[in-house]
Amino acid sequence: MATKKMILDLDTGVDDALALAYAIAAPNVDLIGVVASYGNNLLNKTAKNSLQLLELLGQEVPVFKGMEHSSTTNHFTVMQVSKEIHGNNGIGDISLPEPTQKVQTTDGIDFIIEAAHQYNKDLIIVPTGPLTNLAAALHKDPQISHLIGNVTLMGGALTVEGNVSDVAEANINQDAEAANEVFTSELPITMVGLDVTLRTLLTKKETQVWRDLGTKSGTAYADLTDFYINAYANLGIDQHGCALHDPLAVGVAIDPSFVTTLALPMKVVTEKHNYARTIGDKARLNEPQPNVKVAINVDQKRFVPTFMEHLTKILANH
Amino acid sequence: MATKKMILDLDTGVDDALALAYAIAAPNVDLIGVVASYGNNLLNKTAKNSLQLLELLGQEVPVFKGMEHSSTTNHFTVMQVSKEIHGNNGIGDISLPEPTQKVQTTDGIDFIIEAAHQYNKDLIIVPTGPLTNLAAALHKDPQISHLIGNVTLMGGALTVEGNVSDVAEANINQDAEAANEVFTSELPITMVGLDVTLRTLLTKKETQVWRDLGTKSGTAYADLTDFYINAYANLGIDQHGCALHDPLAVGVAIDPSFVTTLALPMKVVTEKHNYARTIGDKARLNEPQPNVKVAINVDQKRFVPTFMEHLTKILANH
Repeated sequence: MATKKMILDLDTGVDDALALAYAIAAPNVDLIGVVASYGNNLLNKTAKNSLQLLELLGQEVPVFKGMEHSSTTNHFTVMQVSKEIHGNNGIGDISLPEPTQKVQTTDGIDFIIEAAHQYNKDLIIVPTGPLTNLAAALHKDPQISHLIGNVTLMGGALTVEGNVSDVAEANINQDAEAANEVFTSELPITMVGLDVTLRTLLTKKETQVWRDLGTKSGTAYADLTDFYINAYANLGIDQHGCALHDPLAVGVAIDPSFVTTLALPMKVVTEKHNYARTIGDKARLNEPQPNVKVAINVDQKRFVPTFMEHLTKILANH
Repeated sequence: MATKKMILDLDTGVDDALALAYAIAAPNVDLIGVVASYGNNLLNKTAKNSLQLLELLGQEVPVFKGMEHSSTTNHFTVMQVSKEIHGNNGIGDISLPEPTQKVQTTDGIDFIIEAAHQYNKDLIIVPTGPLTNLAAALHKDPQISHLIGNVTLMGGALTVEGNVSDVAEANINQDAEAANEVFTSELPITMVGLDVTLRTLLTKKETQVWRDLGTKSGTAYADLTDFYINAYANLGIDQHGCALHDPLAVGVAIDPSFVTTLALPMKVVTEKHNYARTIGDKARLNEPQPNVKVAINVDQKRFVPTFMEHLTKILANH
């Protein structure tokens, strides 16, 4: 299997932190950059979180800044529930040293466009936050929809209810207009939504394994993940553990066989009524070869151990 | 393959008429009775339509009366759109002789319960209208949820928008409360919804085949189906043909391999907001062995010719 080039588009975020470590640790993938997005926290904070985590994990991966707010607003405020789930600082309120590296001066949108032209079908983009950056890149250079190998995104909910409203998933809800542009473009997309991520639960039994490593990164990752697991329990989301939302998107980007998918022409509702619902487009239902594959089932018995294997490997070394 | 016993629960209806002929013509299935439901028309009218069609097709199958209205109302009025799609008389405004047979005196709900006890796992029930009758049977004898072999129902929409509202499919919308009772019971259910039925289109090319048979039933079925195809075009539902909603449920009941299914614990929304939405229940997502299988894809290239083969065979003989 040829090594794939991966760009992570992160709004870091606890599960983004887990996704970042997964992408670094996994073989057969070369993480060429992280683009920061607003979402779980403000853009400046998510960019800084990614820099700090990369240094914690001993990596020199460039971090770029994307958009500060949605495509239809000129300002972004962190939602209260985001703070409750991810902590005030976005990474479970753990303390990490100030980063020694800086955010790149190249714009994140330009970085995506340049990488699309450079790597073509070998490029995978994994957005785990709002789709604002990707929509902006499509606007600036529509050609990239035919270049990029695959977009495997964490977002949406097709066969289950949302987590922000009964129809809306949090990432899509930040910018349904941008999400609709991405879904209805000609980009080859794999949607990894609540349909499958809510079936991949991590518990304190697993985080204890990292804690027991006795390393800085093992302790930090155990702490930030325990914050997230506690939030899941306290907010009544799930008492059994936390969902591996963003890591599953990375996992599927690398190994699509973790999930079963349904090929479906998708759209995102942008009207006020049922805003941000991700749903099959009846008008295009009988068109051949839809551009979106929606993950509808997951082999969690294989995914969670694979995730643990990769995470534990990298956390043991830093 | 052992012969299955089938009960059709019909609100006849043009596509119910097609489903009825399919069930009669298909091998390996023994149609033991038709229960009438309100829905596409009033109960008395749908019962009469089934009697007339059975006589047209030379069949002596007993017809029973089910409920006259939904579980939460005491009256039912035919929706204007039902008349536009199915005709004022429910069967494309074609004229058929008054039936010589009468509706059975046994209640349709009791017939379902008795058949469940008699045939057990060999019994398949195919509701193609509201789920009011089946919910009433479950109320009267909860035990039948462990007896009945399978319920293959036409209704709902999981991966596409509804046809009554953006979330609601017409059959479920008639009585979401009853539908929720059925979906969340322990009945083994296969949901054949808009997800797949909108992919099975019949055109006037096919109805011309029936017309060319020169038989009474061939002409009648060509006429009533052409009414339906015209309505699809006139109402802007689909310009390419009419969907084989109810016949697909019969087809899947007999041969489940026509569709790909997703096992999912389902619920039906009964609140005013998004009333009658059929959606996976997050709270039960990680429970093993959900009772519902939702059809998410269909082999229309095999189904439509099979449907045509069976229909043409029976229409040639009557």
